[in-house]
Amino acid sequence: MKVIKQKSGLPPGTMVYTGEEKTEKIKISYMDYNDGNFNEGLIENPDACRKYTKPDTVSWINVDGIHRTEIIEKIATCFGLHPLIMEDLVNIRQRPKLEDYGDYIYLVLRMLEFNEKDDEILSEQVSIIFGEGFVLSFQENEGDVFDIIRERIRSNKGKIRRMTSDYLVYSLIDSIIDNYFLILEKLSDKIEDLEEELLTNPSPETLLKIHQMKGAIIELRRSVWPLRELISNFQKMEKKNFSKDTAFYLRDVFDHTIQIIDTIETLRDILAGLTDIYLSTVSNRMNEVMKILTIIATIFIPLTFIVGVYGMNFKYMPELGWEYGYPMTWGIMIAVFLIMVLYFKRKKWF
Amino acid sequence: MKVIKQKSGLPPGTMVYTGEEKTEKIKISYMDYNDGNFNEGLIENPDACRKYTKPDTVSWINVDGIHRTEIIEKIATCFGLHPLIMEDLVNIRQRPKLEDYGDYIYLVLRMLEFNEKDDEILSEQVSIIFGEGFVLSFQENEGDVFDIIRERIRSNKGKIRRMTSDYLVYSLIDSIIDNYFLILEKLSDKIEDLEEELLTNPSPETLLKIHQMKGAIIELRRSVWPLRELISNFQKMEKKNFSKDTAFYLRDVFDHTIQIIDTIETLRDILAGLTDIYLSTVSNRMNEVMKILTIIATIFIPLTFIVGVYGMNFKYMPELGWEYGYPMTWGIMIAVFLIMVLYFKRKKWF
Amino acid sequence: MKVIKQKSGLPPGTMVYTGEEKTEKIKISYMDYNDGNFNEGLIENPDACRKYTKPDTVSWINVDGIHRTEIIEKIATCFGLHPLIMEDLVNIRQRPKLEDYGDYIYLVLRMLEFNEKDDEILSEQVSIIFGEGFVLSFQENEGDVFDIIRERIRSNKGKIRRMTSDYLVYSLIDSIIDNYFLILEKLSDKIEDLEEELLTNPSPETLLKIHQMKGAIIELRRSVWPLRELISNFQKMEKKNFSKDTAFYLRDVFDHTIQIIDTIETLRDILAGLTDIYLSTVSNRMNEVMKILTIIATIFIPLTFIVGVYGMNFKYMPELGWEYGYPMTWGIMIAVFLIMVLYFKRKKWF
Amino acid sequence: MKVIKQKSGLPPGTMVYTGEEKTEKIKISYMDYNDGNFNEGLIENPDACRKYTKPDTVSWINVDGIHRTEIIEKIATCFGLHPLIMEDLVNIRQRPKLEDYGDYIYLVLRMLEFNEKDDEILSEQVSIIFGEGFVLSFQENEGDVFDIIRERIRSNKGKIRRMTSDYLVYSLIDSIIDNYFLILEKLSDKIEDLEEELLTNPSPETLLKIHQMKGAIIELRRSVWPLRELISNFQKMEKKNFSKDTAFYLRDVFDHTIQIIDTIETLRDILAGLTDIYLSTVSNRMNEVMKILTIIATIFIPLTFIVGVYGMNFKYMPELGWEYGYPMTWGIMIAVFLIMVLYFKRKKWF
Amino acid sequence: MKVIKQKSGLPPGTMVYTGEEKTEKIKISYMDYNDGNFNEGLIENPDACRKYTKPDTVSWINVDGIHRTEIIEKIATCFGLHPLIMEDLVNIRQRPKLEDYGDYIYLVLRMLEFNEKDDEILSEQVSIIFGEGFVLSFQENEGDVFDIIRERIRSNKGKIRRMTSDYLVYSLIDSIIDNYFLILEKLSDKIEDLEEELLTNPSPETLLKIHQMKGAIIELRRSVWPLRELISNFQKMEKKNFSKDTAFYLRDVFDHTIQIIDTIETLRDILAGLTDIYLSTVSNRMNEVMKILTIIATIFIPLTFIVGVYGMNFKYMPELGWEYGYPMTWGIMIAVFLIMVLYFKRKKWF
Repeated sequence: MKVIKQKSGLPPGTMVYTGEEKTEKIKISYMDYNDGNFNEGLIENPDACRKYTKPDTVSWINVDGIHRTEIIEKIATCFGLHPLIMEDLVNIRQRPKLEDYGDYIYLVLRMLEFNEKDDEILSEQVSIIFGEGFVLSFQENEGDVFDIIRERIRSNKGKIRRMTSDYLVYSLIDSIIDNYFLILEKLSDKIEDLEEELLTNPSPETLLKIHQMKGAIIELRRSVWPLRELISNFQKMEKKNFSKDTAFYLRDVFDHTIQIIDTIETLRDILAGLTDIYLSTVSNRMNEVMKILTIIATIFIPLTFIVGVYGMNFKYMPELGWEYGYPMTWGIMIAVFLIMVLYFKRKKWF
Repeated sequence: MKVIKQKSGLPPGTMVYTGEEKTEKIKISYMDYNDGNFNEGLIENPDACRKYTKPDTVSWINVDGIHRTEIIEKIATCFGLHPLIMEDLVNIRQRPKLEDYGDYIYLVLRMLEFNEKDDEILSEQVSIIFGEGFVLSFQENEGDVFDIIRERIRSNKGKIRRMTSDYLVYSLIDSIIDNYFLILEKLSDKIEDLEEELLTNPSPETLLKIHQMKGAIIELRRSVWPLRELISNFQKMEKKNFSKDTAFYLRDVFDHTIQIIDTIETLRDILAGLTDIYLSTVSNRMNEVMKILTIIATIFIPLTFIVGVYGMNFKYMPELGWEYGYPMTWGIMIAVFLIMVLYFKRKKWF
Repeated sequence: MKVIKQKSGLPPGTMVYTGEEKTEKIKISYMDYNDGNFNEGLIENPDACRKYTKPDTVSWINVDGIHRTEIIEKIATCFGLHPLIMEDLVNIRQRPKLEDYGDYIYLVLRMLEFNEKDDEILSEQVSIIFGEGFVLSFQENEGDVFDIIRERIRSNKGKIRRMTSDYLVYSLIDSIIDNYFLILEKLSDKIEDLEEELLTNPSPETLLKIHQMKGAIIELRRSVWPLRELISNFQKMEKKNFSKDTAFYLRDVFDHTIQIIDTIETLRDILAGLTDIYLSTVSNRMNEVMKILTIIATIFIPLTFIVGVYGMNFKYMPELGWEYGYPMTWGIMIAVFLIMVLYFKRKKWF
Repeated sequence: MKVIKQKSGLPPGTMVYTGEEKTEKIKISYMDYNDGNFNEGLIENPDACRKYTKPDTVSWINVDGIHRTEIIEKIATCFGLHPLIMEDLVNIRQRPKLEDYGDYIYLVLRMLEFNEKDDEILSEQVSIIFGEGFVLSFQENEGDVFDIIRERIRSNKGKIRRMTSDYLVYSLIDSIIDNYFLILEKLSDKIEDLEEELLTNPSPETLLKIHQMKGAIIELRRSVWPLRELISNFQKMEKKNFSKDTAFYLRDVFDHTIQIIDTIETLRDILAGLTDIYLSTVSNRMNEVMKILTIIATIFIPLTFIVGVYGMNFKYMPELGWEYGYPMTWGIMIAVFLIMVLYFKRKKWF
Repeated sequence: MKVIKQKSGLPPGTMVYTGEEKTEKIKISYMDYNDGNFNEGLIENPDACRKYTKPDTVSWINVDGIHRTEIIEKIATCFGLHPLIMEDLVNIRQRPKLEDYGDYIYLVLRMLEFNEKDDEILSEQVSIIFGEGFVLSFQENEGDVFDIIRERIRSNKGKIRRMTSDYLVYSLIDSIIDNYFLILEKLSDKIEDLEEELLTNPSPETLLKIHQMKGAIIELRRSVWPLRELISNFQKMEKKNFSKDTAFYLRDVFDHTIQIIDTIETLRDILAGLTDIYLSTVSNRMNEVMKILTIIATIFIPLTFIVGVYGMNFKYMPELGWEYGYPMTWGIMIAVFLIMVLYFKRKKWF
């Protein structure tokens, strides 16, 4: 939930990397394909990116690491990107958005990972720029959810090699959103565990876990909500180089987004219900404690009074001299005890 | 509330069944009718589906069981369905939706059943594809709410045999929604029982039941809300082969949907109120317990102090030697007791 | 809040009465009027309804009782009503709605009555069908809020006899909505009583009454909310036989509806506030109880300890032999008592 | 919050005064002005109103008191007002609204006053009817927020004498809304006082005051919310006799309305927060009380047990005969006491 | 949260300063630039403002201090501003807004500062009026967030010197919104501290801090929400002297606004969660206290009763004479003690 913005006040278009410092090398890889041809490899020289975009193929250039702004700037420059995009590429706290710059379209998405140890969602920014025949993608770190797409391109599985660049972008979005389902699955498992824990062994830690879970749901929600409008705008875009079919696929992704939002809202409702149950369980426990205290005190305080009476040292106390005074006192005490027990039975206290 | 999605990352259009594993045979049945003719039977060969759709009749092909994707694929293929529909047919966690593919329309609905033992709603996905002269329906399991429609077709009751395929689809939707009313009825009975239980004998289990009931309502809501838009879009569709009259019937179904949503919201309000009453009942009980404890303790603690005083062993305690010391002490104690009782009476504690 | 729907699965247009069984006779009365003429009476033969609708008069046919579907069907048939209307006429759990069938318009309203004994709102369905020169109204029971309109027609008071059928319908709607004001008045009186009770003598019953009141408000809300859209649609309808002036009157009724909705929301807010106050009052009382217990226990427990000390039977306890041991002990105890009292005074406990 | 409607069932247009009974005389005053001329006075004869509206001046006729319907009717008649306006003029529980009747426009506003003694908002209905060259205003009582406008007209301050009647109406609305700011100021002062009281000396009365304050805010909200739409509609009206400039001024008033709504919502949020703080303060106090009780009881109950042991009268109790038995017992008791104190210290109870 | 409005009732356009009284001199500075030229300085004579606006340069005139209305009036007069703007310039409680007056545009923004000592947001009104070639800005106090823009103009950094006045206005808005990010950062740090405090050492003060934080968030929200619409309207404005490029930059600022609103809503959710955790922590503590009391009381009250029994002075009590009566009593007491301890162990109380 950290809000980071060290760049306050600089002229727009200034590239300032706003993430954690890193020393890893930035890795630039490319895939160039059409139905018949396929090439892939690493790009060592960021200035030379543009030569990979040929008229009759789709070129996907993926950049892992955005912490060295001078390299990102070189890549952006050879594609002639607007300075505001350059600024956004390295500013890692963006909301998902879609911006049409005419020749190319700029997309920001968030790729999520669920850290099961801390019940926390880790979020990585993925920027995608695409136009006729090329797709540029920028990620904060190596490792992503796109390997399955790479495999499909390599092995010419599905129709991806026969489609234009917008279909590749659709596939990337689809992978990211499919991954949200996996996270939702983990979250809903965790919430089921919490429900179990609440019924068998609630503790203050349970409430804390509910709170953490709520935080994770909020994080997920922030990443998913803007997608609704984003995909809907993508669908409505009419560019001459778009395949007609992509709209169908985007509608499918849109449905998934709605389904995820739906599930998120349901999980929120359930979590709110769990908080209520927790509080009422605590309240019930206190009630139990109070009942025990009250039963013990209510039974023994009068008895203690009775024995106190006959512990007095008055010279003239006739009962003390009676032969059956002691058993009679026991009789009274047992009677009081039984009346009390009956009273609590009738009150259904045990 | 399970979120299931094993198919993450596969190319779109890949058919992956996402439900529980099953071994039952898939049953494909058909009904072929117009005003004068009627045929029904089982289809053994899924490739041969298409031959049942004749120009002047309506053919309804119903498939019970979607766990064997190769069979579903064959059926879908002979009707020329889009790969995305094939994928959705076997993916059982869809939200109700309506998609127009030009020649045919694809509908997803959820058929619900109320499991009274666990106060839980079971949800089954029903996919309907229909075009001129044919209706395809896919269900997860055998057994549905459509028998009454089959009977009407067989016995030529009502106008169904004289109408086109869109009227059959309307009838299917109507059956599913009519069934929601039955579920609502059961839910509202259960909630009335809970209300009763809350007033006579509330226990932590009552709160749990309220929570379960809330979950059931949420499940129902998820199935019903999207219907509003779905039916409204269905109404607005203008296809040349639609009967003009169907629009009237869809308006009727739309009204029912609104009525169900209305009732769901009312039940939610009532359940929220029940939680409040439960919590305040618990609070009141604690109050009662505290009052009893306080009355007993407040009356006997001072009396015990008094008898303690005359239990001291000082050599020089004049009262101990008085002839009426003992009755006098009793007098004082009775006075203290009465003052206390009067005090609590005035405070209206009993 | 009962949800009733015994007709699940029947073909649309089937008339099934969904209310409680009754044996009363159905009463059909008519009023036929224009500026100069006026006739009224009972219709014995339901098939003959249509003959009362003459070209230059307005005929209002009112039916009290809808439990004998064959009679309702006859009436509906002679006016050529759509089967879906017939079905709705006898299905008593409809939401207020307005449907335009071309030649006639179908309206469903809910007439309410406040049962002061149980603090409960009783709701009766009123169906109105009207076209050029005729108004049909169907009610569940005899007795309604329209007598004042009948009187106005009979005595030619106001402009009603000079207006067309849509003005009569407006008058019926106006009567029903005026009646909502009376119910709101009773509800707000009851809520004021509850507020009073809460401040002087709150009990668990008070909370229950608040809950009941909330239920009544929800019931009222369900009847009023749809009116907003209904009347607005009525206003926008342009039929050649409508008086131009009716639109002004409908605007007035629309204002009343908004005002009622406004008041309902306010009453809900107030009731929510009352729940809060109730809970905090209970909490305060518990606080009071705890304070008394704590004061008594905190004062007497130490004193009882002191007298316990000198009740020990050790052979060698010098204090027991002192001549002023006993008064000294009293001195110590009084000192302890005073310190305690001062401490509670400073804590402002009494 | 009283809902009043004695007129239920009367024909529309019937004038029924719905306020409290009064005996004061109704006062009708007029102001007639243009840039060069100015006249003012009282109108004794309500039938003669119309003669004050001359072609080249603006006439403002103000009526204080609406409890004598026959007089109001006379005034309304000479301006040819619609019967529904007549009805509304004397029905004092209207919501703010704006209705265009072609030749004239009908406005209902609510003038508020804050009764500081009861922390209650008093609301008075102001009806304004205006057309070319005339403005009619009706108030329930004498005394209003318009004196400053009268002064401006008399002394020809500002541009009001050079403007048309719509500018005068704008000025009246502006005065009423400016007055809302004063009320908001008082309310926010009161809420600040409550915040103070909550921190220094909370009592059940504080909660009650919060509840009252909430009621006042709700009342204010009911008067202000409809203004948003009202003024926006006023702005959009295009009448040939409107000054072009008035739109600018209405935009200004619209901004004020938004600002008031904004502040109202903020105050509601703050009040909701105060309720939370109150409840948690009560809860904290109970905690304090419980701690004291627990400390005292936990320390003295074991000590009392120890002295009880040596108060037993067994013949064979060796300790009783020991020479140092008594001081040893004191030693044990002091040790127990210190252990307890240390335990509570570690728990940070004092 | 103070609501101030001393000007109630004055004619519109009257300038009344509504802030705190001040004695500082009003400082008027100017910057006049185009790509090649640059001038800056102080303006001593407010009437002479207009001479700084030359045809081919952009002139930015900044006024620090608005408490002397006669000076503000002079400046406004030489730019021919509408009286309503003059009134608004010195009325410091405006909501952010954008008004198009044809030749010039009037903007109100709020510049915020976070006072870390009191956890309070200080808000200052910034009014901007701009047209072709000039930008006027008015602030309440000296000191702002624009120094970085001034530096950029002076040193001709970025493209600002080559752009028109609307770009300068964009830069001012951007600076103000960038500053909101810094405030959000501080707020989220504070909230993290609160979260920490809640888990380690919660106290009533923690709740108060949460309440204060909520207040700050509300203040921030009031300043940011209207910006959404404001910037969107700015974007849609089409003026002939606007650079085409500014729209891109405004879209960027719009994104930032959405991001801020998003974060604000998240912080509100988190704060609401913290209140819940606080209340449940208090409740848990009470539970702990009650448990200790109950354990001690439940163990010792029965034991004290037993020793009381053998403290009675009956003549005929056989046990007192038994040789092993005393150790036997101890045995019973130890047994009771152990049973109690086992019972609490099984209840998992310690």
